[in-house]
Amino acid sequence: MKVAIVGSGLVGQAWAIVYARGGCQVQMWDGSEQALQTGYEIVKRQIRELQACGLLDNPEDVTGRLQICSSLEDVLDGVDYVQESLPEKVEIKRQIFEQMDTLAPSGVILASSTSSIPASAFTDALAGQNRCLVAHPVNPPYLIPVVEICPAPWTDPDVVLRTRQLMDQIGQKPVTVNEEVEGFVLNRLQGALLREAFRLVERGVVSVEDLDATVKDGLGLRWAFMGPLETIDLNAPGGLKEYCNRYGGMFQRMSLEQTSTEPWSDSLVERLDQERRELLSADELEKRRIWRDQRLMALMRHKRSEAQ
Amino acid sequence: MKVAIVGSGLVGQAWAIVYARGGCQVQMWDGSEQALQTGYEIVKRQIRELQACGLLDNPEDVTGRLQICSSLEDVLDGVDYVQESLPEKVEIKRQIFEQMDTLAPSGVILASSTSSIPASAFTDALAGQNRCLVAHPVNPPYLIPVVEICPAPWTDPDVVLRTRQLMDQIGQKPVTVNEEVEGFVLNRLQGALLREAFRLVERGVVSVEDLDATVKDGLGLRWAFMGPLETIDLNAPGGLKEYCNRYGGMFQRMSLEQTSTEPWSDSLVERLDQERRELLSADELEKRRIWRDQRLMALMRHKRSEAQ
Repeated sequence: MKVAIVGSGLVGQAWAIVYARGGCQVQMWDGSEQALQTGYEIVKRQIRELQACGLLDNPEDVTGRLQICSSLEDVLDGVDYVQESLPEKVEIKRQIFEQMDTLAPSGVILASSTSSIPASAFTDALAGQNRCLVAHPVNPPYLIPVVEICPAPWTDPDVVLRTRQLMDQIGQKPVTVNEEVEGFVLNRLQGALLREAFRLVERGVVSVEDLDATVKDGLGLRWAFMGPLETIDLNAPGGLKEYCNRYGGMFQRMSLEQTSTEPWSDSLVERLDQERRELLSADELEKRRIWRDQRLMALMRHKRSEAQ
Repeated sequence: MKVAIVGSGLVGQAWAIVYARGGCQVQMWDGSEQALQTGYEIVKRQIRELQACGLLDNPEDVTGRLQICSSLEDVLDGVDYVQESLPEKVEIKRQIFEQMDTLAPSGVILASSTSSIPASAFTDALAGQNRCLVAHPVNPPYLIPVVEICPAPWTDPDVVLRTRQLMDQIGQKPVTVNEEVEGFVLNRLQGALLREAFRLVERGVVSVEDLDATVKDGLGLRWAFMGPLETIDLNAPGGLKEYCNRYGGMFQRMSLEQTSTEPWSDSLVERLDQERRELLSADELEKRRIWRDQRLMALMRHKRSEAQ
């Protein structure tokens, strides 16, 4: 497989690593020559770092599969699949997809990394609209496998299938989002939990620190290797149906208090931020992000070492 | 510290292990002599199993700290703290707390393991109402550290504090639930996420399998060692406040579609159950639970081996 990376910012860089690590030939391009060079250097450095962390073998082979191209025409030459990762503006997406649809032979899949713009918003006028879709990674995709595949209404089902197969092949975990919903699936689940978290802190039920502990020392443990539905399926002798019969009433009563939809208030955000800053000062954020990535790498190594 | 376990069913057994492993002297009692003997044997066996899994040292010492008692009076003799784990019926709780409040000297903390009944519902008439509270474990507490501490309005703040200290001392993770809300904190967070999961599957946006993958290969990875608030705090350069400014609008738009509160419909539950049964047949549930506990044990060992 030969893949084009269009846009060499943070997201494009991470994708380049994922595809090259997964055995694909990767061609990178960016509208800015400077950004392309910088991105390419960062990718090569990160490949060495991932090897040092035990998350990548044969760094020379991986780097050897990377190539930079000086034009959009060049980067699309001979590829099977394009991963676009330009800024999150619908006009930018519209323009680049128009150019890509003109330049790339039919049969080449055109995927966008967008987290917030549905494919239908920038592919509606294209002759090749049925080969376009969203393939939304979670940052950074070389540590977090899930990729949300979201077609436009006119996307060919075979394009969805082939994109899923590509993700499987490179070791990512594709999930198909069948409808263009705001936030796809991951952010909708996160949003539902965050909103209840914000409500509970706003109401004074729990502190920021204790709320996080409830997840990291409780709820989040099973979710790191099972999903929420498998979790409840195993939490009643007869499986999911029995769980729902037993606890559905409780969950329904709670939901009656979980319907607020107003914007998060400034005062609440201020308070949450203040509680966080007491736990971790602003100048420690960057150090903690490094800790987070190391913990994530260790967790991924752990998951890989366990039989599935 | 000397702890009384009142009720030797599944929850009481697990608590006995946790307290004894944590260095407490543990006295167990159950209204049924037979249940007490059975529970005691199971506890001793599980202590050996936990040692075999690397989750407990010195099993003889731990078992040596356990003792069974033939009456409620005996089990309360000389203890600092009582952990009640009888069936989830308010009348049962009311009766046992009345007896315990009469028999145990003032100063002894009386805690209930209930997941669904607020302490105020069964301690309102007690002379010692201010020493009563809920200490709700997640099953099984010897693998999952979080314990929700939920006082009644009349509980002495010092009783909350001392219960938290006891949990810290035995290696559990206490979180304080300041108000008697339905489902405390953990199940409210779970409920919010589950409801959105059910909505997305019902609407056909995602399959049961892909929904679980979105969490176990994405969202749940960070939550296993950070909470949801620390997660967003680290996900924007300037921290939580900047994250909320950037993404608050998206989360608010989603929330407008996340307000349904009706009971989970039979047809939806049927469909979810059917999709789960295609992934895991009913006769494999028990085997999968053993797998789950082994994965959980491995994850806890992993977390312990990582520097915090």
